[in-house]
Amino acid sequence: MLEKPTITLTTDFGLKDPFVGIMKGVILGINPKAQIIDISHNISRQNVFEASQVISMSYRYFPPKTIHLVVVDPEVGGMRRPLLIIRGDYYFIGPDNGIFTPIFERSQSTMFKVFHISSSHYFLPMSGSTFHGRDIFAPVAAWLSKGVESSKFGEEIMDYLKIAAPKPAFVNNNTFKGEVVSIDIFGNAITNIKRDDLTRLKIVASKDKFMVIFNDKQLPMVDYYADPYVSGLGLSVIINSFGHLELFVYRDSAVDKFNIKIGDSVSVTFI
Amino acid sequence: MLEKPTITLTTDFGLKDPFVGIMKGVILGINPKAQIIDISHNISRQNVFEASQVISMSYRYFPPKTIHLVVVDPEVGGMRRPLLIIRGDYYFIGPDNGIFTPIFERSQSTMFKVFHISSSHYFLPMSGSTFHGRDIFAPVAAWLSKGVESSKFGEEIMDYLKIAAPKPAFVNNNTFKGEVVSIDIFGNAITNIKRDDLTRLKIVASKDKFMVIFNDKQLPMVDYYADPYVSGLGLSVIINSFGHLELFVYRDSAVDKFNIKIGDSVSVTFI
Amino acid sequence: MLEKPTITLTTDFGLKDPFVGIMKGVILGINPKAQIIDISHNISRQNVFEASQVISMSYRYFPPKTIHLVVVDPEVGGMRRPLLIIRGDYYFIGPDNGIFTPIFERSQSTMFKVFHISSSHYFLPMSGSTFHGRDIFAPVAAWLSKGVESSKFGEEIMDYLKIAAPKPAFVNNNTFKGEVVSIDIFGNAITNIKRDDLTRLKIVASKDKFMVIFNDKQLPMVDYYADPYVSGLGLSVIINSFGHLELFVYRDSAVDKFNIKIGDSVSVTFI
Repeated sequence: MLEKPTITLTTDFGLKDPFVGIMKGVILGINPKAQIIDISHNISRQNVFEASQVISMSYRYFPPKTIHLVVVDPEVGGMRRPLLIIRGDYYFIGPDNGIFTPIFERSQSTMFKVFHISSSHYFLPMSGSTFHGRDIFAPVAAWLSKGVESSKFGEEIMDYLKIAAPKPAFVNNNTFKGEVVSIDIFGNAITNIKRDDLTRLKIVASKDKFMVIFNDKQLPMVDYYADPYVSGLGLSVIINSFGHLELFVYRDSAVDKFNIKIGDSVSVTFI
Repeated sequence: MLEKPTITLTTDFGLKDPFVGIMKGVILGINPKAQIIDISHNISRQNVFEASQVISMSYRYFPPKTIHLVVVDPEVGGMRRPLLIIRGDYYFIGPDNGIFTPIFERSQSTMFKVFHISSSHYFLPMSGSTFHGRDIFAPVAAWLSKGVESSKFGEEIMDYLKIAAPKPAFVNNNTFKGEVVSIDIFGNAITNIKRDDLTRLKIVASKDKFMVIFNDKQLPMVDYYADPYVSGLGLSVIINSFGHLELFVYRDSAVDKFNIKIGDSVSVTFI
Repeated sequence: MLEKPTITLTTDFGLKDPFVGIMKGVILGINPKAQIIDISHNISRQNVFEASQVISMSYRYFPPKTIHLVVVDPEVGGMRRPLLIIRGDYYFIGPDNGIFTPIFERSQSTMFKVFHISSSHYFLPMSGSTFHGRDIFAPVAAWLSKGVESSKFGEEIMDYLKIAAPKPAFVNNNTFKGEVVSIDIFGNAITNIKRDDLTRLKIVASKDKFMVIFNDKQLPMVDYYADPYVSGLGLSVIINSFGHLELFVYRDSAVDKFNIKIGDSVSVTFI
């Protein structure tokens, strides 16, 4: 039990309705020492895939023992199970709807267990079926942060749900094809092609040895956004700080300017 | 005086201007131990009724002794009084403009006092008349959280302001008529008809004994959003987790799809 | 080293992407005792001037020793330097792109030093060039909040960058001309003319001795928004709680109703 345990929240609840504040109230009522941090509450409505990407890119930047609560939950109140996951140094709590797919896919070398949360004496007294964030996930996170053993919340399971996610792949001998999987506030288009993919393919990370192709055009690749080489040049590509190939326009929105959409193809061609 | 007192904030200040951050700075300057939690800062501009609903549905989920600051305050700087309210286990601070009407209407069995905040030595030195959130409400909340007695902030009063709120009522022997009073981020339409109304009317809460009518059509009533009975069926009704009748469409926006507006009638007809 | 040091965040990262949450995770990983407060994450995209105004109006409302992190950083990863500034009781951390211009312009009577952050052992291990908020600014703020001496982060410098900001000035013997520099959520138009300007000009702050002119019309000047004199009168002027002349419409948006834009002229004519 940490002196000041961290609990993060990722939801599609937005910031107008009081849902997020209420979840925090429930947590503090059980564990006043909890430090609650928002990751995002503006996940697109009921977009489980988007939430899975957001938690996947964020969780490791938090202190060990952080409890990550993720609630994008269109099937709330139905048959889908509430889950508690231990993966390495981190805990994850949320619905069994595939939202934790990237967490399930991590290397098997770390501690990994999945529990079906069912011990209802840790829940808030139920007053409905539409807000498990308040009634189940928040109180379970709070009790966990107070030191309750993971195994107390329910049985360990193996048949948790995974969702399909687009994966980059070779389409011929020297072309590795991925796609745009997210768009950030700056209008940058982030692809699912990673630096690690290039490395794993035994490609030395030299710009001379591959070309990034979008809409049949080769994009200039640079080391930082303000590289004078691309200022004013239009669409360019960079390996971003999460290790992904990212299409950008210096001081402008690549997405708006080049009408880029999630799902658009991006290829790496090796020379 | 709590070791880590909770202060919540509900305003129409939005999250672009620095107003909310400044209020938090003022609070921490007086009481660094305060735990400040946002309920909402996206109350519709100067909408006192909306703010009153939000605090009414939220306050009880916070730990006892929580101080709820609510600042939607079009008459700031004028004659309206600043109030401090004790209601049961909770404190409320904000303008005397009706924003606390639902708090005033709670059962008389709990502790209940209203003070007109006037002891200006607890205020920030005034530099204007447009931001009492910073100059009066935040510092008073901070001093209260440090253990200053409620009665030190001003005289007890009885003539606090209430605003009219739409209330459901019988329109004939077997029809109880309410209306849509709010819309959430998912496009669900929440009515002012509560489970408690049905119970109080000595109606057994059986779906067979009443029908919910909207726009002359009976709506299917279910126990959870993903109930297979309504998937794909269109507009349905549920008792939500705050005990209110709520109109929804599974995985879609009821409000957008059926053009529902705040104020639209919803009836319960007893068989 | 404070028991519970305050770190504020001001960025253009928005609240959908996980960037802000990740920065908080990094801070808590280094200093779990930090109290992190958001000032704004909705600064207009890459608008350094807007960010400089927001931090300038906010910083002094926080407890002494507060560390203000400001990250609006279009040149991230390039040649612009990361800065740590001590100004009086406060610390500021962010890019050397002019964002701290108003801080540099404060009275010289207080402690004032600027350091070029370069001690990379305080940084996160770098994984890219696009997110110094996570890799440099957040960890430096966290280490500073743990008591690391400012001078440990790099060399003191004098050639930090300032940006030009519009300043009000006399355009003839009795006309002082300023402009609208920001617009708040309520549609109020805030000018760069301050109460202090009027005082410094040896003008007694009496409404009888000057007129505020916008679009060739004299505006009524009042002491609070709800002043009965202006209710229903249209565009009026007030000295707001930050000491600036502000154009407003009671319970409406001045900006929408009178099509006011940033940069529009506002004059004070002395009689």
